[in-house]
Amino acid sequence: MAQSGGPTAVINASLAGVVQEARRHRAIQEVYGGANGILGVLAEDLIDFNGESLETLPGLRHTPGAALGTCRYKIDFKKNPGQAAQDMDRLFQVFQAHDIRHFIYLGGNDSQDTSLKVHQEALGRGWQLRVIGVPKTIDNDLAGTDNCPGYGSVIKFNATTVMEIGLDVGSMATEEGACCLVEAMGRRAGWIAAGTVLAKRGQPANPPHIILLPEVALDEEKFLRKVQETVAALKYCVVVVGEGVRDAAGQEVGVDLSRLDAFGHPVLAGAAQRLQDLVQNQLRIKARSVMLGYAQRVAAHWASRTDVDNAFACGRAAVRAALHGHSGQMVRIERALAPDGSVKWSTGLAPLADIANVEHLVPRDWISEDGFLPNERFVEYARPLIEGEVKIPTEAGLPRYVTLAKRKVGRKLAPLSRG
Amino acid sequence: MAQSGGPTAVINASLAGVVQEARRHRAIQEVYGGANGILGVLAEDLIDFNGESLETLPGLRHTPGAALGTCRYKIDFKKNPGQAAQDMDRLFQVFQAHDIRHFIYLGGNDSQDTSLKVHQEALGRGWQLRVIGVPKTIDNDLAGTDNCPGYGSVIKFNATTVMEIGLDVGSMATEEGACCLVEAMGRRAGWIAAGTVLAKRGQPANPPHIILLPEVALDEEKFLRKVQETVAALKYCVVVVGEGVRDAAGQEVGVDLSRLDAFGHPVLAGAAQRLQDLVQNQLRIKARSVMLGYAQRVAAHWASRTDVDNAFACGRAAVRAALHGHSGQMVRIERALAPDGSVKWSTGLAPLADIANVEHLVPRDWISEDGFLPNERFVEYARPLIEGEVKIPTEAGLPRYVTLAKRKVGRKLAPLSRG
Repeated sequence: MAQSGGPTAVINASLAGVVQEARRHRAIQEVYGGANGILGVLAEDLIDFNGESLETLPGLRHTPGAALGTCRYKIDFKKNPGQAAQDMDRLFQVFQAHDIRHFIYLGGNDSQDTSLKVHQEALGRGWQLRVIGVPKTIDNDLAGTDNCPGYGSVIKFNATTVMEIGLDVGSMATEEGACCLVEAMGRRAGWIAAGTVLAKRGQPANPPHIILLPEVALDEEKFLRKVQETVAALKYCVVVVGEGVRDAAGQEVGVDLSRLDAFGHPVLAGAAQRLQDLVQNQLRIKARSVMLGYAQRVAAHWASRTDVDNAFACGRAAVRAALHGHSGQMVRIERALAPDGSVKWSTGLAPLADIANVEHLVPRDWISEDGFLPNERFVEYARPLIEGEVKIPTEAGLPRYVTLAKRKVGRKLAPLSRG
Repeated sequence: MAQSGGPTAVINASLAGVVQEARRHRAIQEVYGGANGILGVLAEDLIDFNGESLETLPGLRHTPGAALGTCRYKIDFKKNPGQAAQDMDRLFQVFQAHDIRHFIYLGGNDSQDTSLKVHQEALGRGWQLRVIGVPKTIDNDLAGTDNCPGYGSVIKFNATTVMEIGLDVGSMATEEGACCLVEAMGRRAGWIAAGTVLAKRGQPANPPHIILLPEVALDEEKFLRKVQETVAALKYCVVVVGEGVRDAAGQEVGVDLSRLDAFGHPVLAGAAQRLQDLVQNQLRIKARSVMLGYAQRVAAHWASRTDVDNAFACGRAAVRAALHGHSGQMVRIERALAPDGSVKWSTGLAPLADIANVEHLVPRDWISEDGFLPNERFVEYARPLIEGEVKIPTEAGLPRYVTLAKRKVGRKLAPLSRG
């Protein structure tokens, strides 16, 4: 198994699920993890889970980051077919050298594409391999699953933070007015920014008052008018800005075309920062911005228990699917409504071919007509994802997170020489 | 009582302490709060705590922001003596109209100065009034007290966030290296940035690897060398940047002198953002920044129980001090070491005259010789401040914070006409 792409608060919960389930089955002799994703597999840099202490595994369930290490490397047959073919040869050398028959890859869009390619290669090469993808991305932009592990936790943290910032800015607001802009991750999909709507708890006067999504072209005039109206009514305004918000021409607002960096690229000043300048300069309202950045995606101290449980269940389901002979599939999360209105979560499978490289955006009919807030349909979808808290063990006031001992599996191949 | 200055995670815990203690004493007939700090007292905009439900008071103990509202208004005899004299007249008209005999003001440096002035005025006017200040500032820059309520919680949240970001950036780091810069509040004092050193838990390899304090002039060359060395050793580097960090000439790093805003002032680009550009351009290392802004000072979902308890105790102590006939004093927090090494907290009093307008910075001998990290003396001081967690009640996955009903006290004076 390997982890890929950006870390989350719950990717290690999936890892724990894989290891725990694998250990229950005698058909599986060893559990290996690739160090830094597929790069570790290519380098035959494998970690043996037998080398981990008994306390580490339960601790992984609440530890953020990618405990095995992760990477953004993609085996890309389109951009670099020579390198990709070479990578595939090497991958199967490693699989054969260690008699690896199950490959579980935790990641987002790119990683599901990699899993699909590996599955197809195995078929072509006649190497019996079961490839199962496990969804992982705070962006929540994977098709074929109700939601992506990592998403529930990031919106729980962000919605809580928006509530808290609202109490702060609201208590400071006087007749002069105040505006606070909070930048949320999501370069192409607005799921994370949209999730902060839960902070409203159904009350129009509660923050956030405006949510800007990459899915809706920003009209600066309309936006400024909305800020002004909100400040007139409430003395303050909290705006959540999806980092990838674009203008009508499709240009990202966070990119400052008037300034170039040392590489000659336009400076990425940040959408919230640029809109803060706009509000201050155009409306003469005191504005501040908050850029949560990486802090939001690994805030395991305030993770969603629903999200952690689903992440763990996905890991376990991947192992069971492989043992049942499935391959070329991704574990999906499914929801069902119980008679009492509560949500029952379960897992299923979806073909990787239907998922890889498909981007799932916030549907337009889940957003208010004026484009400034997700509507009730979105709220109904997102609300169950943040339910439940996780009790984190602490030591001297700080979370007790674990790290892997990372005992290496003995090498059987010559070192990789990259072409 | 009134709240003043920037909100914190625990200012309402002090408020709850004042109200709870006041209700225990028959000598106190009514408990009033000024809406938006001293401005509310001047405007005779008073809130009657008898109008609050029984559930609100315990809820205040874990609710961030300033529940009564706050302000940054200062009665300033130096800058505007005419207005200040007028304000004082009005203040005592309000005190007399409502027979107010105790005035408890929760705030930082400016507010303690206001309290002192009100105390002196009362003596001069012969109006029997007991004025007690309650310390409140995340900046921790008040003299005369071991620490300031609000500070323990902000550094607990920030240290936790730095741990989490470290797990994120560390798990993504490959041979190319990575750097993450986290901006912490503190324009003049570096206490908040310094507090993130607790995330190291005594391990030099743990983040944060560099902490830049306003107290130490930044040498860009030395800073870049330190980043480079850290990345060479660990593949990544986490830097905490105090927002007010300055260069040798005393110029704030976060101010971009080359760009002017619509008012003709240099753009405040943010210290972390500017150092991110520096690292990327000079070292060609991928750098990202996080600007926690307001989020850090009101993160009540991860508050320090020690801080909440001390804040509450300060509120109670203020009432007891007033009832004992003290005036012109601020409640101070005192620490004593128990034989088992644990800290026992208590409260005492310190004369406002010794506190108002004195700025307490991080001592130079609490900082490493190279200036890049607080040392063991700082750690020993700060560690007890973050101990203990607060169990926050939740509803549908979000904290259940309370708001005051804010029933107004009937007016007895003509409306204020500001001169």
